[in-house]
Amino acid sequence: MTAPRHAPGAFPAEAPSLEAIRGPIAEPFERFQEELDRAFLCDVGLVGAVGAHLHRAYGKRYRPMLVLLAARGFGEATDEAVHGAVVVELIHTATLIHDDSVDKSLLRRGLPTVNSAFNNDTAILMGDYLYSKAFSILVTRKMYEAMDLLAEATHRMSQGELRQIEQKNRLDLGEAEYMRIIEEKTACLMSAGCELGAHAGGADPARRAALGRFGRAVGLAFQITDDLFDYLGAEQVIGKAMGNDLDGGKITLPLINALRNAPASERRDMEDLIRTRDFRNGHWSDVVRFVTVHGGVAYSQERSALLAARAEEELDHVPDAGIREALQSAVRYAVTRER
Amino acid sequence: MTAPRHAPGAFPAEAPSLEAIRGPIAEPFERFQEELDRAFLCDVGLVGAVGAHLHRAYGKRYRPMLVLLAARGFGEATDEAVHGAVVVELIHTATLIHDDSVDKSLLRRGLPTVNSAFNNDTAILMGDYLYSKAFSILVTRKMYEAMDLLAEATHRMSQGELRQIEQKNRLDLGEAEYMRIIEEKTACLMSAGCELGAHAGGADPARRAALGRFGRAVGLAFQITDDLFDYLGAEQVIGKAMGNDLDGGKITLPLINALRNAPASERRDMEDLIRTRDFRNGHWSDVVRFVTVHGGVAYSQERSALLAARAEEELDHVPDAGIREALQSAVRYAVTRER
Repeated sequence: MTAPRHAPGAFPAEAPSLEAIRGPIAEPFERFQEELDRAFLCDVGLVGAVGAHLHRAYGKRYRPMLVLLAARGFGEATDEAVHGAVVVELIHTATLIHDDSVDKSLLRRGLPTVNSAFNNDTAILMGDYLYSKAFSILVTRKMYEAMDLLAEATHRMSQGELRQIEQKNRLDLGEAEYMRIIEEKTACLMSAGCELGAHAGGADPARRAALGRFGRAVGLAFQITDDLFDYLGAEQVIGKAMGNDLDGGKITLPLINALRNAPASERRDMEDLIRTRDFRNGHWSDVVRFVTVHGGVAYSQERSALLAARAEEELDHVPDAGIREALQSAVRYAVTRER
Repeated sequence: MTAPRHAPGAFPAEAPSLEAIRGPIAEPFERFQEELDRAFLCDVGLVGAVGAHLHRAYGKRYRPMLVLLAARGFGEATDEAVHGAVVVELIHTATLIHDDSVDKSLLRRGLPTVNSAFNNDTAILMGDYLYSKAFSILVTRKMYEAMDLLAEATHRMSQGELRQIEQKNRLDLGEAEYMRIIEEKTACLMSAGCELGAHAGGADPARRAALGRFGRAVGLAFQITDDLFDYLGAEQVIGKAMGNDLDGGKITLPLINALRNAPASERRDMEDLIRTRDFRNGHWSDVVRFVTVHGGVAYSQERSALLAARAEEELDHVPDAGIREALQSAVRYAVTRER
């Protein structure tokens, strides 16, 4: 077996392609794309301009894919599932735009963020446009079940974002607090999306709940993998600078774990290097070495693999074998993707 | 009759006090305050800290007052009305916080804005927290009627905000475009709030619609009055610098009208003064004089008085005489307040 690049053990190193995973939902995915485009139809020209930019820079469409697969796993990818996928993507995109603005990020997946391609004002207001569009779709279509799930998820996301800036630069952040933040800011929307998809596809309450747990575990694994990019990724590949998260004061699992494992004197030196941001002056490789040598990378990879395995277990509840496989690939994608 | 200070003709110069207007809804207003405070209960410390600040700096509570009066005009200020008032205030506050952040305003009503007292990141995320809290309350309480009204209003507000930054610095902005922006960014939430209040109080559809039209007219009059402050207010009174709106590129009714009336050469000179921002160098009084001499102030006052009168006409639909009077005072407040 070849050595895995980002994720450990059980999975092949190569991430499955999103196109392949989407195979069984090609038709509803096309409907989703059309409906998503419609959300940007607005007589304010700026909305279309930002929409065109988003289409290029923000478009992995991983979450809507989960929604549609969850629906197809139990029945049809109904209109409710398609619109649910649109709403989940709109909420996610709104969050990304506001995040990039808060983090002053200039690049996302190698392309300029909304705040850098346009400006901060546009980023703030466009995020609000997308949030409110999402709820307006839910209301217009009387999707009350989805509204239940997504109002709660959206509110938890905003709490997670606030918690994150409250914990900024806190080098004593514990693993439990970290897990809570990523649960809120990433996992709860994926969980709500999968549950909503299962509901739209006709799943009974028990199976619906199982898909919610599936989405939660995938979301946690997805975010831990994302946080590993800060220490492992090559800039050309992930499309943003390494060390960006830490530079912005985000203390994530690889570092939390390494700080816990390192001998006191090394830990103190590293804390100084981080506090002073001295790592920006050619010392970033010291941080990467510290995090790697003290097991932070391996531990994070294990944690994400464990969560991925837990997600896969929930798939026993999905009757359609083809969809089960596609969802398994989606889990693999979450932990082996390169950006 | 003494000369009116901000508003013309029919109204007395003195604005009624909010406390007096709230007289008939003292009890539900207290319940509203309690419920509003509960919206800031959160284990993220930052939420409480910003909440305490908002309480001081953002708290006119004009919109929830309208919601509760609208309900009491037809029956009781029910729980639905109280929670509707909370949700309207949360949405309004979220918009203010994001607006202040977009406009880089440092003061609101004489106190630091969230972006200046905390920072821009907190302003963005706290706005999101309040938006999502609002929808979460509506969902939890199954207030589907209110959700219908407010999802649409919130989305139109975000469109208005985007339209406003798209039209920034456009000295050829027409009155119709201006009216459309203030309809979206201010009037539609007041309209939705009044309609929702009337609905919660048990009004039939025709009366409910009348209260919606009332709220719209009040909202337009309220915003025109607000825009006049930029040209008329004294800094100590309105709590922000004069000329702030224009400096931020907001072209509002007083200027639009004066530019239309002025002879071509004077107009061109004024356009240059504005384009170059030369008015910041001791020439602000020239702008005020231009806007006044060419009738922009008087015209805006007339427009807002006309809208106030139109709002009052809709009050014929309100059976309770005491509440009708309170709502009349609320209209007078909208056009005669000093900040």
